[in-house]
Amino acid sequence: MSNARIGLIGLGTMGAALALNIADNGFPIAVWNRTTATTQEFHAGAGDLAGMITPTETLEELVASIAKPRAIILMVPAGQAVDDQIAALRPLLDDDDLIIDAGNANFHDTNRRADAAGDLPFLGIGVSGGEEGARFGPSIMGGGKRAYWDRVSDVLNAIAAKHDDTACATWMGEGGAGHFVKAVHNGIEYADMQMIAEVYGIMRDGMDMAPAAIGETFAAWDDGPLKSYLVEISGKVAAATDPKTGKPMLEVIVDAAGQKGTGRWTVIEAQHLAAPIPAIEAAVVARNLSSQLETRQAGEALFGAAPHHLPHDTLTLGTLEQALMAGKILCYAQGFDMIVKASESFGWALPLPEIAKVWRAGCIIRSAMLDDMATALGEDTGRNLMFAPRFATLLQENHNALRQVVAQAALHGLPLPALSSGLAYFDTMRTGRGTANMIQGQRDFFGAHGFARVDGGSGHHGPWGS
Amino acid sequence: MSNARIGLIGLGTMGAALALNIADNGFPIAVWNRTTATTQEFHAGAGDLAGMITPTETLEELVASIAKPRAIILMVPAGQAVDDQIAALRPLLDDDDLIIDAGNANFHDTNRRADAAGDLPFLGIGVSGGEEGARFGPSIMGGGKRAYWDRVSDVLNAIAAKHDDTACATWMGEGGAGHFVKAVHNGIEYADMQMIAEVYGIMRDGMDMAPAAIGETFAAWDDGPLKSYLVEISGKVAAATDPKTGKPMLEVIVDAAGQKGTGRWTVIEAQHLAAPIPAIEAAVVARNLSSQLETRQAGEALFGAAPHHLPHDTLTLGTLEQALMAGKILCYAQGFDMIVKASESFGWALPLPEIAKVWRAGCIIRSAMLDDMATALGEDTGRNLMFAPRFATLLQENHNALRQVVAQAALHGLPLPALSSGLAYFDTMRTGRGTANMIQGQRDFFGAHGFARVDGGSGHHGPWGS
Repeated sequence: MSNARIGLIGLGTMGAALALNIADNGFPIAVWNRTTATTQEFHAGAGDLAGMITPTETLEELVASIAKPRAIILMVPAGQAVDDQIAALRPLLDDDDLIIDAGNANFHDTNRRADAAGDLPFLGIGVSGGEEGARFGPSIMGGGKRAYWDRVSDVLNAIAAKHDDTACATWMGEGGAGHFVKAVHNGIEYADMQMIAEVYGIMRDGMDMAPAAIGETFAAWDDGPLKSYLVEISGKVAAATDPKTGKPMLEVIVDAAGQKGTGRWTVIEAQHLAAPIPAIEAAVVARNLSSQLETRQAGEALFGAAPHHLPHDTLTLGTLEQALMAGKILCYAQGFDMIVKASESFGWALPLPEIAKVWRAGCIIRSAMLDDMATALGEDTGRNLMFAPRFATLLQENHNALRQVVAQAALHGLPLPALSSGLAYFDTMRTGRGTANMIQGQRDFFGAHGFARVDGGSGHHGPWGS
Repeated sequence: MSNARIGLIGLGTMGAALALNIADNGFPIAVWNRTTATTQEFHAGAGDLAGMITPTETLEELVASIAKPRAIILMVPAGQAVDDQIAALRPLLDDDDLIIDAGNANFHDTNRRADAAGDLPFLGIGVSGGEEGARFGPSIMGGGKRAYWDRVSDVLNAIAAKHDDTACATWMGEGGAGHFVKAVHNGIEYADMQMIAEVYGIMRDGMDMAPAAIGETFAAWDDGPLKSYLVEISGKVAAATDPKTGKPMLEVIVDAAGQKGTGRWTVIEAQHLAAPIPAIEAAVVARNLSSQLETRQAGEALFGAAPHHLPHDTLTLGTLEQALMAGKILCYAQGFDMIVKASESFGWALPLPEIAKVWRAGCIIRSAMLDDMATALGEDTGRNLMFAPRFATLLQENHNALRQVVAQAALHGLPLPALSSGLAYFDTMRTGRGTANMIQGQRDFFGAHGFARVDGGSGHHGPWGS
């Protein structure tokens, strides 16, 4: 009985998909779920893979089914459920058995659990790619002691997505490093999705394009430099028809976006790190505002609908494509910059080029551009991505399009929180002499904070008068 | 000896100013500082007020100098120093003696300290207004049990700033309510300062105005609807000359803004509350980016300086004034909305109109507009300030100016992170049909999250195809 290569607890959508993926790659796996009926249904539905899977009814049975030294993946809801599961499981294990939390943990929790585990093997791994990725190849970001990672890397490499035969499964560092990298991934995902939604809004409201035409546009962009999973699926979403009404799906879906909180964690952490990620912050805010549906409708009634419609030929689809390119690069530059700051602050040595590589396939933000980003980050890991020659050139070629789009949207009442914050970031980062001297003057005026002088002096208190 | 109305610990800039203010208002006060020399210098420099002040050399002596039941204000650095001071002081006090933390505490710490105090009297009060305010009339936001507030409200009302004879000292609620309101005040302060700095940048770089002319402009605005302390002092900062070089002060001050972290706390808390405060977030990010001086200079070298200069007559000073009006209203709307959400989330009953009133004088964000805001919030506390008739009218009159400014700045490379986020907020809040339907479609595509349908259905999984 005790011949499974690995165990897995929690057969929800993601856990079930991951278990099938593991079995599909030739690793015998033992599975357990709190509700035995779920385990039985899962096993009954596993088809050809059922022979690779040992369904178990108790934790003891699960443990007994796994080859030593054991490795058990937890796929339970983030938070207290993980702690409860570890507390229930650990007493049944040997001291060299490995627990792997592959759920959506906050990396602070993973740090805490790694500390609490002490010498008992523990890993926290971030898994991105949704249900489809979990089943056929996710992107896997690992954290914990390297030796524990090495014990299961054969399994993780096998089940991970591949980019040119390279597995998208990478050890990022100790403790919560993997879940941290996953959090930044999710933050970038929020911003990328928001920027696409903003461009969709310009096409829909500014250019009066029908969903089908919008779908064709995204599909065309997916053959160019914007090639990415999110642009691809945006095209499919826009092109889809509601079977119930025959209307375009986009007209059927309510415009109130949910969130599981991972984008919020990223923003909170960025504030603690003093890492500027305004495009990601704008995207999180946009989701919050989207849920204020009644308030927005009242706003339209009170202020009148914005003009929205752009005069003919104001913006071309090519300009929109370029603006999205520029916005996307700036969003990634912010995300990678946050990783640099976290690496310094937490004493990690987060491998920036490897992070770009692990995101090239399997995960939600996978894109053609990430391959170039891996190269650029390999040249100089500490440098803001904006300054890498490849991306500096792209920004030089595309920032004027972003300007046109932001300006026209501003004039016509089309809200572009993420794209406009991206432009403000770019213009701030290329302005050698900014305007914070005014803020320092104000702070010194009312709080005697002092300020640095351009001629090298400091601590001077201004002659402000009364 | 034991006749002081109140005691005060910590004679730093703010503590010393507050002690003089208390004495100046006729309340005998006993003071103590960890370094006795500081206490002696303070007393020696108190001039006519020295007779009202009892300097003490030990905590025991301080306690013995105060009339029972005692009240002692702590003005020590936020954080561990406050806990240490409470631990040292409490054993010397009677059970009905009151400790008041008047420093810059994080309101979570104040909640914790209030809980830890149990039945022992404790207040946390936020004090705004800088050194000048502390000395001659700050704005005071109190938190803790109402009965404790009432025990010292005579002193606090006397020393507080006055607006039409109404003292700017208000009890906000239990525990950390006062420090929470102060945190939102500081967040608004960040955004208000940032928006002013952005408008300054347009005048300087876009309109080639000299500091003196900019100073005159702010001074003129301070006679109009923008009348406020921050606009007033911005005018004075712009008008000031460096005695050392004879240059305008603004040319002498380095453009890298510091922060004490209070803006950051506000942003973090807003994320926890899912309260959208994008203008405040943009302002915190702008300060972080301002400190990346070398990177910005490298950015200018690499990308070339932006054009900046606006064609003649593109924007008038009147347009800038209107844009700042609109931006400011939107920033305050966000701040008050965050207070509403906190009030619900923390089980407080934060008195919105009273908060606007307490900010009318003494504090850094005091302005003519806050009087109207108090009225508007009194009409309907749950309503977003944007929707109050007075401010809806102002937005209707001024949002087109904000559009012009954001558009022209975008075209000419002038970074306006806070103003442009304000415009995006306004346009989002007046768009009944937003673009989050695309985001929901994407999320359902990759994560089977489901979505609500406009015809009332829900949980539908889209027919996305493969």
